[in-house]
Amino acid sequence: MKRTHHCAQLTSADLDSEVSLIGWVDTIRDQGGIIFVDLRDRKGITQIKLEPHDNAQLAGQMKHLKDESVVEIHGKVSRRPEGTQNDNLPTGQVEVVASELVIHNVSETPPFPLDDAGGDKVNEDLRLTYRYLDLRRPRMRKNLLTRHKVTKAIRDYFDSQEFIEVETPSLFKSTPEGAREYLVPSRIHPGEFYALSQSPQQYKQILMVAGVERYFQIARCFRDEDLRADRQMEFTQVDVEASFVTREDIYELFEGMVRKVWKEAANYDLEGPIQRMSFQDAMNRFGIDKPDLRFDMELVDFSEIFCESSFKVFSGTVKSGGVIKAINAKGLADVTQGELKSLEDTAKSLGAKGLAFIKIEGGEWKSPIVKFFTDEEKAALTEQLNIEDGDIVFFAAAEWERACTILGRIRLDSAQLLVKRGKLTIRHDDWKFLWVIDFPLMSYDEEQGRFVATHHPFTSPVPEDVALLDSDPKAVRGQHYDLVLNGMELGGGSIRIHQPALQEKVFKDVLKIPEDVVESRFGYMLKAFKFGAPPHGGIAFGLDRVCALLSGTTSIRDVIAFPKTQRGQDLMAQSPTPVTARQLKELHIQTVVPETE
Amino acid sequence: MKRTHHCAQLTSADLDSEVSLIGWVDTIRDQGGIIFVDLRDRKGITQIKLEPHDNAQLAGQMKHLKDESVVEIHGKVSRRPEGTQNDNLPTGQVEVVASELVIHNVSETPPFPLDDAGGDKVNEDLRLTYRYLDLRRPRMRKNLLTRHKVTKAIRDYFDSQEFIEVETPSLFKSTPEGAREYLVPSRIHPGEFYALSQSPQQYKQILMVAGVERYFQIARCFRDEDLRADRQMEFTQVDVEASFVTREDIYELFEGMVRKVWKEAANYDLEGPIQRMSFQDAMNRFGIDKPDLRFDMELVDFSEIFCESSFKVFSGTVKSGGVIKAINAKGLADVTQGELKSLEDTAKSLGAKGLAFIKIEGGEWKSPIVKFFTDEEKAALTEQLNIEDGDIVFFAAAEWERACTILGRIRLDSAQLLVKRGKLTIRHDDWKFLWVIDFPLMSYDEEQGRFVATHHPFTSPVPEDVALLDSDPKAVRGQHYDLVLNGMELGGGSIRIHQPALQEKVFKDVLKIPEDVVESRFGYMLKAFKFGAPPHGGIAFGLDRVCALLSGTTSIRDVIAFPKTQRGQDLMAQSPTPVTARQLKELHIQTVVPETE
Repeated sequence: MKRTHHCAQLTSADLDSEVSLIGWVDTIRDQGGIIFVDLRDRKGITQIKLEPHDNAQLAGQMKHLKDESVVEIHGKVSRRPEGTQNDNLPTGQVEVVASELVIHNVSETPPFPLDDAGGDKVNEDLRLTYRYLDLRRPRMRKNLLTRHKVTKAIRDYFDSQEFIEVETPSLFKSTPEGAREYLVPSRIHPGEFYALSQSPQQYKQILMVAGVERYFQIARCFRDEDLRADRQMEFTQVDVEASFVTREDIYELFEGMVRKVWKEAANYDLEGPIQRMSFQDAMNRFGIDKPDLRFDMELVDFSEIFCESSFKVFSGTVKSGGVIKAINAKGLADVTQGELKSLEDTAKSLGAKGLAFIKIEGGEWKSPIVKFFTDEEKAALTEQLNIEDGDIVFFAAAEWERACTILGRIRLDSAQLLVKRGKLTIRHDDWKFLWVIDFPLMSYDEEQGRFVATHHPFTSPVPEDVALLDSDPKAVRGQHYDLVLNGMELGGGSIRIHQPALQEKVFKDVLKIPEDVVESRFGYMLKAFKFGAPPHGGIAFGLDRVCALLSGTTSIRDVIAFPKTQRGQDLMAQSPTPVTARQLKELHIQTVVPETE
Repeated sequence: MKRTHHCAQLTSADLDSEVSLIGWVDTIRDQGGIIFVDLRDRKGITQIKLEPHDNAQLAGQMKHLKDESVVEIHGKVSRRPEGTQNDNLPTGQVEVVASELVIHNVSETPPFPLDDAGGDKVNEDLRLTYRYLDLRRPRMRKNLLTRHKVTKAIRDYFDSQEFIEVETPSLFKSTPEGAREYLVPSRIHPGEFYALSQSPQQYKQILMVAGVERYFQIARCFRDEDLRADRQMEFTQVDVEASFVTREDIYELFEGMVRKVWKEAANYDLEGPIQRMSFQDAMNRFGIDKPDLRFDMELVDFSEIFCESSFKVFSGTVKSGGVIKAINAKGLADVTQGELKSLEDTAKSLGAKGLAFIKIEGGEWKSPIVKFFTDEEKAALTEQLNIEDGDIVFFAAAEWERACTILGRIRLDSAQLLVKRGKLTIRHDDWKFLWVIDFPLMSYDEEQGRFVATHHPFTSPVPEDVALLDSDPKAVRGQHYDLVLNGMELGGGSIRIHQPALQEKVFKDVLKIPEDVVESRFGYMLKAFKFGAPPHGGIAFGLDRVCALLSGTTSIRDVIAFPKTQRGQDLMAQSPTPVTARQLKELHIQTVVPETE
């Protein structure tokens, strides 16, 4: 069972060598009694020529020689006849003329084609049920390899920067205020539960108190959220924390990592430092805190222009403290009624009353609102939005954050419509990295009637804003940073609070978390910080999403070997399942299943 | 907050340099108003000299300058005065005369000393409660670093061998027949549960079916077992699987890994191949399937010698098919009554009726049984056990496996008694690796009245023994192998069954697992194997134990950053805990707490 070569290895240099190959039958062709097999292993494909009429041993095996069977062949490397070479294959000049064939395992007929094009059309549930076949497809094989390379590059990088990898527990304590968590009943402590760790956040800060100074981990994390294409119940996080660092240190450190990962996994050279944008600018210009910079279509503010407009919707909004924003979806004047309706629905779902627009077609401005505009207003629009024939301009008039958010979404949706029309190209490998910084430390939660941490309660305020914590919490900027790529948040982090008194103040006075909750949830951290906590900060980012971006797929399920479905099921191994009464009894729980189900 | 140097860096070569250091106050000494601080960071210690009477800035900070506070100093490197150098410290020739001191955080007085000697004496519960202080101790810091180096070496090794790391799910299906597992209730599927993966065994075999060919993973695994010093509820497993391999390939592969890990983490050169021993030999010679080869004291078989003995306990045992085994605990004739009683209790706990022995003191054989022995029998004992004055010989007379096991334990306990007396030296870094092979595939479980897999039901029988599966299952050897080091099992694995028909036969006909259980538990694997499963095999070993051995500690808790106690508690973060009624309701469970608790 020893192969002498992989299936991507043999070339004309090996002519006349006796070789052994082993792998899967990719395809079989019978040409007048001569059988050609493409033999596949994880490295590639080699053509095998079998002449069963000359060889009783081969003839005996022929009936088991089916697609996807596992076979071993011994034979001699020959040049393919003139005209039958395949220049697209590394092994395309040669074939192996088999003298012996061993069938290690036969295969039933796969339920779907295993080539990329055929497999891509298959229902995803079927692919997941037969994941072992799905993973044989070249694209999926490549995705797993890319993931391996990415994690290897990350680990090598942090090791080279003298970070040490420390494993933190998955079985943590329940902290029910954050995202929904998975619980694990304790057998030894009846009525008590562990929670599966949502992130190593608290442990990594404790490691800083422990003097580790430079920590990283590629950590499995768990969140019981409703699943979307880019969410899984368990996911992998690259988790980093360092002591005695400023934001600048983290930027530099992380840019080094990005440079290495993108070089090794995508052969891309990231040049210069990654650009930075404040949260305020990102919202103002792109209407979102994770701008996709691969195309322009920036938001423009017309509040001043329209503050005295006879169009009362605009002037009224400005007078009551709101803003008027517009974008020019260049070349989208041919938007259909259906598309326009869909854009309007999107705007409304974000709190807009409607979606004002101006189409420019045949030199004419078409819009129910254009009649209210003065020539000066029109001139301002034309100039600042570079309006030309064939364009469509969308407006939002609302409170600042809402107006930005609405147009930010319309911008993204318009771009998709332009891509569909071939008027805009957005390449998945046009890597536009961006640091978004200077987020507000807190935002006011209307529902709860109190401030909540924009990111998490451990984020340190920008030093010059600390004094505003009592007087104007909303104005306090946090030392938080997000790394954004092509409209996706790769990760985020912050410089943390390391002074126990300030941390306690944020918990109790600013976030108004009740004292007993602070004590039970974070008491041990506050205590730890009293024993010489160093200044520290860090970052965490989603490995699954990075791998998906690098693999050019929009679904993280394509870069996870065994993902769950959006209903949280493993269709292959079949979980979750009911369990036995004995198991439940040992864990001191019973199930309460709703009768309606 | 930028340090110019680490605290292990400055030497005489840096004299007169202006430097900045940052770290923790390790110790403070006041010598007539001049303050000497040992400043510590993760790399080492540098002595700082502070003269507060000359410097108002320093004077103002003095009151916060307590042990374990976080401080930053700026100053000039000076030579220590003659006679005050410390040759044991890399920085021992110099000190930094501080011109400026910044206190980043003060520390309360730690509840226990943070040096190795002092900390070792502290109750482990206290160390775990203040783990962030415990981890500042040099030994614990070193253990975390060793663990990082070991995992790095393992990953680099497998990468160099073209293995790819693939992550498999932690949320798996419940398979209640094995070790006890942790359950995770599903919110979306009322009444159903996931189980936390006990090992990636099934997924990694599926990866072989998927054509990955060479897989590894450093995987978190979970087992709800009662905890001992070397068990944790969650532990880390190095998990490996490869296609188209024989046992020899695995031995070679793994020996390469061991060679690299021991070189990088312990600077030890493993020479030559690791020796191998059959299960049969290991039991016969050492009475255990994981022999500690750092000392001899081998078991010797005297069944033939005593088969006609007038000592009926011996001859009767042999006649009824049992064996007589003996060891010579050289130099242990001075065993105390208490020690002897304890050895006897151990033997009885393993099913012995007593523990026959002969002490040799002053040329005399002292034993109640020696009067039954002929001169020939005595001569045989003397010769084969190399009996000399001061020795003690222990016997076991029982069915083969029991006799071996009893004396195997007495051998280990005797060795400890000899170590205590200084008569035997067992070094933790005397690395005696061993492959134990040729285990029986199955063993008969008296309680269940059926055969059970000695290791797991996926292990392939040795090809020439397959025919015995029906006729004599007990005689079938498995293609299993254990890697043993110094009496510890580092890991084990096997060549697996890859033929669906043979796997099904083992499940149903040999192990007699009911058909519906086979279907619900392993149905998907049997199905997968029908689509061209390659021959494959692998191994898994415990990373925690490897790190403990390399760190010279007997407790894996010393090489895990945040271990649970033997009661499964995180004493620092305080888990497990009760949870809210809302959480339970969402998960469709309620607790059933025993009233007696």
